[in-house]
Amino acid sequence: MKEKNNHISQNGSIGVFDSGVGGLTVLREIARALPNEDCVYLGDTARLPYGNKSRDTVTKFALKNSSFLVSLGIKFLVIACNTAASAGLDAVKESFDVPTTGVIKPEARRAATATRNGKVGVIGTRSTIASGAYELAIHQHDSGITVHSRPCPLFVPLAEEGWFEEDVTRLVAERYLMDLINEGIDTLVLGCTHYPLLKKVITETVGRDVALVDSAVPIAREVKDTLKSMGMLRDVNRRRRLTYYVTDDPKIFTQVGESFLGFPLDDVRHVDIAV
Amino acid sequence: MKEKNNHISQNGSIGVFDSGVGGLTVLREIARALPNEDCVYLGDTARLPYGNKSRDTVTKFALKNSSFLVSLGIKFLVIACNTAASAGLDAVKESFDVPTTGVIKPEARRAATATRNGKVGVIGTRSTIASGAYELAIHQHDSGITVHSRPCPLFVPLAEEGWFEEDVTRLVAERYLMDLINEGIDTLVLGCTHYPLLKKVITETVGRDVALVDSAVPIAREVKDTLKSMGMLRDVNRRRRLTYYVTDDPKIFTQVGESFLGFPLDDVRHVDIAV
Repeated sequence: MKEKNNHISQNGSIGVFDSGVGGLTVLREIARALPNEDCVYLGDTARLPYGNKSRDTVTKFALKNSSFLVSLGIKFLVIACNTAASAGLDAVKESFDVPTTGVIKPEARRAATATRNGKVGVIGTRSTIASGAYELAIHQHDSGITVHSRPCPLFVPLAEEGWFEEDVTRLVAERYLMDLINEGIDTLVLGCTHYPLLKKVITETVGRDVALVDSAVPIAREVKDTLKSMGMLRDVNRRRRLTYYVTDDPKIFTQVGESFLGFPLDDVRHVDIAV
Repeated sequence: MKEKNNHISQNGSIGVFDSGVGGLTVLREIARALPNEDCVYLGDTARLPYGNKSRDTVTKFALKNSSFLVSLGIKFLVIACNTAASAGLDAVKESFDVPTTGVIKPEARRAATATRNGKVGVIGTRSTIASGAYELAIHQHDSGITVHSRPCPLFVPLAEEGWFEEDVTRLVAERYLMDLINEGIDTLVLGCTHYPLLKKVITETVGRDVALVDSAVPIAREVKDTLKSMGMLRDVNRRRRLTYYVTDDPKIFTQVGESFLGFPLDDVRHVDIAV
């Protein structure tokens, strides 16, 4: 049964959640595309990462995170974590009345449009790749596209270690991406919000002729288009608020998040939904 | 206030928890040292890893895990995760009546005895190293020992990827361990239950003259000695049971755990305490 929310208001915030800091890249693009909108971000930093965990567990986490954001009176919900979107988007849509979208479909559409030779590579966490969600979404646009997928579990810890351009990262990238290169892909979906941090090494490994597609810009456009078509864009021109909640220590998140995004994170609060 | 447990029985199990599969190396040694004892293991696989998380959050996880094991009627509790032991051992001891011990102190004692030149290295997760728990425990034995510590966050994901002897792992090990080598350590504590999987590369990096100390054997001896001194060893010679609980999918744990330990894991059950 759906948790009813009869108070969806044009002045409500856009709610965004991710397992950790990765979804901040998505938040940043949404905030850029919609400069009048309040946004509230939840990072489930106490239970991250989601990428090696089972579909059932990740779906439960996604429902818990959504329930918290819905309780704040959001008008729109964005699942900014690819693993959570691949496992839990349908369950979240069934459980809550708030209009919801997730990463995966928007960038799948972009990849389907971008490829010229019909060979698309997809990299992501173990769980995202095992779900087959990208393959399905790309084939919904063009069933003739061949999709080559590869889980890259070490990319997240390498990004979190800050080793963006190290020899180690190059070696790992070569090992993970060699098969995709040999398949002749001309488009590569970065199917995890951390991977754009490794864009330089990934580009050098696959070559500049391969188009990289990440989640942030496509999902931000989708959020803007959907709110517009629903007549739910806020029309007041005023200073908007960005609020952050995390399930682990706000200090760690603020520190990592700021180095991740390159701008200050004010107003990071703790919420106790992970224990 | 302590959760009272009036049913501590000589026939109760030994409870062991870790964030994931790592503590199975500890369980294996306890099971070897005490072949008549039932053991019950909990891996908090839905919320792992603990290593980058705050002391408060890890302490809450440790209390939740302990509460579950205590509810099963265990006679002794072992915190097999270095991060959880460094953050939560005191809180767990205060909260439950069941005799409790954790990794860190036993291997600190061994390291203090093993060093000949008084220079001990300690590697572990960010959280374990930041806690200073090893330094404190080593100095309780010999305040003249110099302790050089280094967090090695990529060792866990490398071990979980199964890259035990890869060039990547060698490069990472050189980078992490170079400073400790330059300090002239003659003893190195592997302060995380995953690190013994990388023993070959670590030995090659630091050299065969550096003694490696891990948690499993020292803690198993401590458990045996304590139960013996308490008169709580079971004296019945019968087939014992090893039972496993995990907070994520039992299938993933069974698969990873078996490849980790090299022996089959029967009777792995799911318990829903992480959502």
